[in-house]
Amino acid sequence: MDPSDSNSAAGGKTQNVSVPPVEGVAGGGTSYGWVDGGLRGTNLGAGVIDPTKVHSEDLLHVWSMPSTANVSQQEAPRPLEKVNLLAARNERESFQIALRPKVSWATSGIAGSVQIQCTDLCSSSGDRLVVGQSITLRRVVPILGVPDALVPIDPLSPQVNLQPGETAAVWVSLNVPCGQPPGLYEGEIFITAVKTELDSRTESLPKFEKYRLYRELRSCLDLIGPRDYSSPEEMVQRLTSASTALRRVLDNPALQDCQESNGFGDMMDEDVMNNVSVRLKLSLTVWDFTLPVTPSLPAVFGISETVIEDRFCLEHGTEGWYSALDHHFRWLLQYRISPFFCRWGDSMRILAYTCPWPADHPKANEYYSDPRLAAYAVPYAPILSCTDAAKNSLRREVEILKSKPHWSKAYFYLWDEPLNVEQYDMICNISNELRSYAPDVRILTTYYCGPSGSELAPSTFEAFVKVPNVLRPHTQIFCTSEWVLGTREDLVKDIVAELRPDLGEEWWTYVCMGPSDPQPNWHIGMRGTQHRAVMWRVWKEGGTGFLYWGTNCYEKAMIPSAEICFRRGLPPGDGVLFYPGEVFSSSHEPVASTRLERILSGMQDIEYLKLYSSRYGREEGLALMEKTGMYLGPDRYTLDHGPVDVMRAQVTPSKRKAHSIAFLP
Amino acid sequence: MDPSDSNSAAGGKTQNVSVPPVEGVAGGGTSYGWVDGGLRGTNLGAGVIDPTKVHSEDLLHVWSMPSTANVSQQEAPRPLEKVNLLAARNERESFQIALRPKVSWATSGIAGSVQIQCTDLCSSSGDRLVVGQSITLRRVVPILGVPDALVPIDPLSPQVNLQPGETAAVWVSLNVPCGQPPGLYEGEIFITAVKTELDSRTESLPKFEKYRLYRELRSCLDLIGPRDYSSPEEMVQRLTSASTALRRVLDNPALQDCQESNGFGDMMDEDVMNNVSVRLKLSLTVWDFTLPVTPSLPAVFGISETVIEDRFCLEHGTEGWYSALDHHFRWLLQYRISPFFCRWGDSMRILAYTCPWPADHPKANEYYSDPRLAAYAVPYAPILSCTDAAKNSLRREVEILKSKPHWSKAYFYLWDEPLNVEQYDMICNISNELRSYAPDVRILTTYYCGPSGSELAPSTFEAFVKVPNVLRPHTQIFCTSEWVLGTREDLVKDIVAELRPDLGEEWWTYVCMGPSDPQPNWHIGMRGTQHRAVMWRVWKEGGTGFLYWGTNCYEKAMIPSAEICFRRGLPPGDGVLFYPGEVFSSSHEPVASTRLERILSGMQDIEYLKLYSSRYGREEGLALMEKTGMYLGPDRYTLDHGPVDVMRAQVTPSKRKAHSIAFLP
Repeated sequence: MDPSDSNSAAGGKTQNVSVPPVEGVAGGGTSYGWVDGGLRGTNLGAGVIDPTKVHSEDLLHVWSMPSTANVSQQEAPRPLEKVNLLAARNERESFQIALRPKVSWATSGIAGSVQIQCTDLCSSSGDRLVVGQSITLRRVVPILGVPDALVPIDPLSPQVNLQPGETAAVWVSLNVPCGQPPGLYEGEIFITAVKTELDSRTESLPKFEKYRLYRELRSCLDLIGPRDYSSPEEMVQRLTSASTALRRVLDNPALQDCQESNGFGDMMDEDVMNNVSVRLKLSLTVWDFTLPVTPSLPAVFGISETVIEDRFCLEHGTEGWYSALDHHFRWLLQYRISPFFCRWGDSMRILAYTCPWPADHPKANEYYSDPRLAAYAVPYAPILSCTDAAKNSLRREVEILKSKPHWSKAYFYLWDEPLNVEQYDMICNISNELRSYAPDVRILTTYYCGPSGSELAPSTFEAFVKVPNVLRPHTQIFCTSEWVLGTREDLVKDIVAELRPDLGEEWWTYVCMGPSDPQPNWHIGMRGTQHRAVMWRVWKEGGTGFLYWGTNCYEKAMIPSAEICFRRGLPPGDGVLFYPGEVFSSSHEPVASTRLERILSGMQDIEYLKLYSSRYGREEGLALMEKTGMYLGPDRYTLDHGPVDVMRAQVTPSKRKAHSIAFLP
Repeated sequence: MDPSDSNSAAGGKTQNVSVPPVEGVAGGGTSYGWVDGGLRGTNLGAGVIDPTKVHSEDLLHVWSMPSTANVSQQEAPRPLEKVNLLAARNERESFQIALRPKVSWATSGIAGSVQIQCTDLCSSSGDRLVVGQSITLRRVVPILGVPDALVPIDPLSPQVNLQPGETAAVWVSLNVPCGQPPGLYEGEIFITAVKTELDSRTESLPKFEKYRLYRELRSCLDLIGPRDYSSPEEMVQRLTSASTALRRVLDNPALQDCQESNGFGDMMDEDVMNNVSVRLKLSLTVWDFTLPVTPSLPAVFGISETVIEDRFCLEHGTEGWYSALDHHFRWLLQYRISPFFCRWGDSMRILAYTCPWPADHPKANEYYSDPRLAAYAVPYAPILSCTDAAKNSLRREVEILKSKPHWSKAYFYLWDEPLNVEQYDMICNISNELRSYAPDVRILTTYYCGPSGSELAPSTFEAFVKVPNVLRPHTQIFCTSEWVLGTREDLVKDIVAELRPDLGEEWWTYVCMGPSDPQPNWHIGMRGTQHRAVMWRVWKEGGTGFLYWGTNCYEKAMIPSAEICFRRGLPPGDGVLFYPGEVFSSSHEPVASTRLERILSGMQDIEYLKLYSSRYGREEGLALMEKTGMYLGPDRYTLDHGPVDVMRAQVTPSKRKAHSIAFLP
């Protein structure tokens, strides 16, 4: 509801068309009883609700939402329907479960706790997708009020707290392994209202009772402890006193429930779930094709080493530092992303490198050969301190790497958005040096305008589009901001026309602060399809790679669990695609954003589109995007999820239609 | 931060004027390290934080906010300053404490828990305002994302949970009793980061350990329990076995902390608070004047009996029903409000009554004589069912009441916003009946337009302003919607000119759906001063009473803890000034909204303005509102709190200036 909805022209009262059921037609009585909560539960009575004795359907709304939905705290309930998903092998497909309390059953300030238990997904031939491995649950946590952080739910205690009047969301991901047999997999998710930890606290022994018990048992032990007993009488007396003391201990009211129960009341057995849980049916069709392990489109994403050093209090080059970088590298690889670490110098000089170890270290080969890595940055060490040692080490690096099969994935990223002729000259000098070591070296340069100080005005499109003339042969990967294009997709041909593919020149793109709404980008507060559409745009425009400047570029902090602040001057979420796990729990695992998951989905969509195009040609691939309504241009793409699944369902090797399609509108 | 702030005209990058301390001047490095979190705590290290060993200042931001601030979850921290408040006797003055985590110290999904402990406020002459009685703490809980519900904090466990990246607020109210000696009262609030219940769960004995312990102790008892011991050898053996068993029990790791501690770790002693707590200094100047117990301006507010019956599953007329109504009546009285219960019939007929008991019941006299009650509604029972019994009972009621001293507070409220001549005729007929029982009866009629079916077009201002001509002598309290005035304060004189004070006619006003923003009203999402300004407006316009249609008019529900839904077609919060306590905890006490507290503040402001005017004249009172910038008109009033305190500080009988004024801008 919005205050601006109020129809004050009607004299401060709206007149409903039909007569509400209970009170008067307007004013004080306006539409009382109009929205029937649909609660079964007049049988819930007026007292405190015991969730174990009531069907959870009476206590909360449960419904599913697609992964592109931003499920806000004010999201209104929808009917609960079966979730049908489609996925290839080596693909992750996600959806969300939205939960909203109908009543409060906790007594400790929240509306109530909910337990979420998922069965394995099984096919009729007995194959499985196993919970915890292939199926994960994460809580969607708001950042700046927008659902964004995906905090893992402990599989041993899969509980979520619901607040009164707020919708919560759980992000369910299905990860289909490469070797998974195709077929229809089915399972269920049980959502059960439970007593909160605090409400069931009476069942554990409170601290002060524990201390009292301990003291009583100690004195009991003093009574009977091994010693010289002077006489049988003394022994009888000691035995009697000890047994009286023990009996008193056992009579403690805090222990009374031990007599009545078997002690396994915590386990929720199948009967309970069958009787009181809300059941969400889930089916996943695994197609008979596998997404390539190596992403078809290299997407290189920066990780700030400065931020890691500061936040985790790590000194450069220490064991902990290497371990933290390694952890981040491997964690990001799962998102079909090729990470590079980076540190900025003056005037947008940048030291970018994918592997923190030198080329002759065994780890280097492990990194660079990883088939999931589509491209890697080789450090140009002299960029920050131009010593002889740095120069020599660089030459050694290139000597080693250029002989390896993975050398075709290598690139140098030297300067972020050079702006003037001096900066262009620097790039050319470095290029000359690098090409003397390896003539086939690839240099990536990002830019959004031409250089100032040349004959063309730098802010003109002409100056921008002629940059390859200035940087040839000192740049092979011309990486331009999508912001320059705006909604003018037709300008792509002008950019591409200037390139010389025969010389190995490529066109890549990037987004950062711009473009802004309504164009695709990854700012917090944009729509989910807008996040996913960044990669649709890349594929439609035909770039052969993508760069993103930062994944962990929050404001400086010196404590792992310090509040995440976004940097001044950047739109919220820009440069931040995951969060330190320590902010949300004791886990050291990074916490993905919904935006990072949508980037993965977009990368996967590219594989679908590429597969389709390899079969029917690129024109048909583009036509598929258009006719499904998924993506027509930077300001014309679907706002709803439906067309995404329609597109994906079309791309099946068997040409068999999806047996049912999830989230059709 | 707002995505629209992004300066894409600068090529997707903003250039900062001065050079940020660590990384490059733009792009990826934009302003890294620019906002120094001000954390002392490099000494916090990289591990899990133990809040008992760290100063809470390193863990969270604490700052105060005035009661008119809507402290959102995104509220940015401010410096912590001493809070200085002014209050009369018999006044409630409130402020808020905002809390925002700098780091996370809990490991269970929240950022951390905070304990809030307040000292008594003491004067130099030894007088006190006692915590729990005169000082209360409530948690500010968002409703539709806006801070609104004030949920009491358990004084025995005054803890608040903080979420990562979110600002929480605690509402502190100081209630100055009528007999409180004037003077300066000082105290402190200690805000201390603590371990969460779940994190300190390890300190209690988990359920399964408790069961194991119980079984072990039982078998130990079986060993030594009183019985015939066959021989001293057997006794020695039993004693030895039992002591071995007991020793094993005591060696259980779950009991190890009992050896090390005295068991009083839960209590936070003064030393701890002095060492690690954030201390908020608080002073309250109690003036040497007392707000009148009976509000100078009667403000009559509706309570829907239908809603109470439905939500609390109470049958009309049962003991529980009377008790629930009584509870609501007494609870609302503390807000300087004169409640009436109500039930709507067809065509906006309304049954309104202040006391659910008949006039000859002892409770009736208790209700009507209560000095805090400024006006009461007498039920016109025949409005819903016009039986002889109803008519007779009405006549009896009036006969009894008209002889009482409190009869001058009585009014009949028969119809909500009559719209046509037929409805006007009904009111006239009832009036004729009532005046035959008591010639000095007062009838209140609400309206926002003239009647349709008369010679004047009903929607014209002329038809509206002439309503007294049509309803005389059948209405004495002409209660008009502020919506009609809009921002045209000058129209007030036209309304008043039509009234006959010599016949006892009065002008009252009301707000409901309208007026809407930016005029004062009580919708959720409006500013705090906008809520408080409803009463400023009443005082400036010179009405002698005020009506509000509903305080508990949420959507129908049949369970006390059911989610609060607002009614369709009403702006959010309209007709809802408090919530059922059961939604937020096991308490049955209603939960006030911030809006209800601001209504009370506005009612108190009226007493200040009236006091000032009684001394210097009404013109000076109006000038005071204007020159402080507090209220100049329905679209010109202060958005900040400062002028409110400036106004209040001027109204001191001693003419002594406030020794310091809270929340000056």
